[in-house]
Amino acid sequence: MIKSVAIQGIKGSFHHIVSNQYFGKEVTIQECLTFDSAVQSLLTDETDAVVMALENSIAGSIIPNYALIDTHNLHIVGEHYLDIQHCLMALPNQSLQEIEEVRSHPMALLQCKDFFKTYPHMKLVEDIDTAEVAKRIADTEVKKIAAIGSQLASELYGLEIVAKSIQTIKHNETRFVIVKRENHEVAENRINKASLKFELEHKRGSLAAMLNVMSDCHLNLTKIQSLPKIETPWKYAFFIDVTFDDYKHFKKAKSIMTIMTEHFKVLGEYINAKP
Amino acid sequence: MIKSVAIQGIKGSFHHIVSNQYFGKEVTIQECLTFDSAVQSLLTDETDAVVMALENSIAGSIIPNYALIDTHNLHIVGEHYLDIQHCLMALPNQSLQEIEEVRSHPMALLQCKDFFKTYPHMKLVEDIDTAEVAKRIADTEVKKIAAIGSQLASELYGLEIVAKSIQTIKHNETRFVIVKRENHEVAENRINKASLKFELEHKRGSLAAMLNVMSDCHLNLTKIQSLPKIETPWKYAFFIDVTFDDYKHFKKAKSIMTIMTEHFKVLGEYINAKP
Repeated sequence: MIKSVAIQGIKGSFHHIVSNQYFGKEVTIQECLTFDSAVQSLLTDETDAVVMALENSIAGSIIPNYALIDTHNLHIVGEHYLDIQHCLMALPNQSLQEIEEVRSHPMALLQCKDFFKTYPHMKLVEDIDTAEVAKRIADTEVKKIAAIGSQLASELYGLEIVAKSIQTIKHNETRFVIVKRENHEVAENRINKASLKFELEHKRGSLAAMLNVMSDCHLNLTKIQSLPKIETPWKYAFFIDVTFDDYKHFKKAKSIMTIMTEHFKVLGEYINAKP
Repeated sequence: MIKSVAIQGIKGSFHHIVSNQYFGKEVTIQECLTFDSAVQSLLTDETDAVVMALENSIAGSIIPNYALIDTHNLHIVGEHYLDIQHCLMALPNQSLQEIEEVRSHPMALLQCKDFFKTYPHMKLVEDIDTAEVAKRIADTEVKKIAAIGSQLASELYGLEIVAKSIQTIKHNETRFVIVKRENHEVAENRINKASLKFELEHKRGSLAAMLNVMSDCHLNLTKIQSLPKIETPWKYAFFIDVTFDDYKHFKKAKSIMTIMTEHFKVLGEYINAKP
């Protein structure tokens, strides 16, 4: 039973929206400044789950979050896609021309790059968190400064939306995962997606051989990412997501991959949110 | 002939060090606030080359930089690895205990996470650029605030190093590329590495088939990264780096991949900096 969910950022953030959509609005939201502290709250039993952004269309994979899941032996128990719609918001009764400065997270500023090109009078300042800026503007009642964030943030902190859907890519999807201490939320026959990690020697054809195995076992790749192991030159770690129709195919692939790779690890087995 | 090199950040940044090591100290350094403006300076002929970080051990690939190279049809003409050694620096004659605040780029703060855990009295504040904070501390002569940056930055701005090599991963390598408007710096027989981009239909085994081709053509993968194409569901773009001993093997692979993939593109052919 999920009672408390840790999110990165404060209420009104996109992580909060994902928690609302995935768990409903009855759970307690634990606001965390960093993904690191969100994971700490899970490890110390303060919270029951963490909502974590894992990849988006602009930055690709958020590797530090993969590392957090891996290092602490946590489990991905579900995934959720959110169409990130950025709004520009400020204290009420200000026009776009009156906004002199926009403060937001670097990624949000990057995602809205084209919009700001048409408003060169706005100074862009990097800040820690999207929703936190919105709250600060409301708390300090400061004018001429705008935040970028969700409609939920504007509602929670009483700001007015000056411009809607200002991100460059109009359909701006981010993939979030739900992370817990234990695995296996769902019955095997409902599991149709998994996140894997393994290592390979740097040898010609070694990855091709692994992909052949996966293909032979009727697994579909939805994501692949190599990461050189800094401590061990010429060793590579791979993060791979696969989908499948039948859990027994995946089971077969797992048993082969355990033998053919090093440090084979299942980071999560869950239900594909995009079947 | 390279006369002017654009870097992200200001003098004293790690991009500046890479330029010094790759081009020597005689070139003019063009300081750019963002990678975007660095690329703009190249497109408008203001500069002859851009130094660009492309991947590190913690964040993985810097996808927005791949997108910049791809979108503007630029060419990777070389690569350079730098072992990023972070120093904590402040105005002279201050002890570690006297430092109350550290301002730096989010990635630098992240890379030094463990160090700051042992100094919890230091408030960490995200800022735009590592070296820029060092310069600001020197310019405004503000005490009790420290910057994270290179030894070069401490020398250029007259700050004192309070702690050395404070990054968590002691051997903290970042891969930089040299980007130009045109390709082919080097004779074909010296080229032994290439960066490729192509797209595949989401079909079981499609990537495995491509990797088999590459392996058959004696190419070694040193990097692979998938990126879903947001505008076109079920299409994937792949960024792949390969090394090879003989350019004619690569040439053969190119001609097959052109047929077997969509939008096949060589982002660069250059000399492997880690043979």
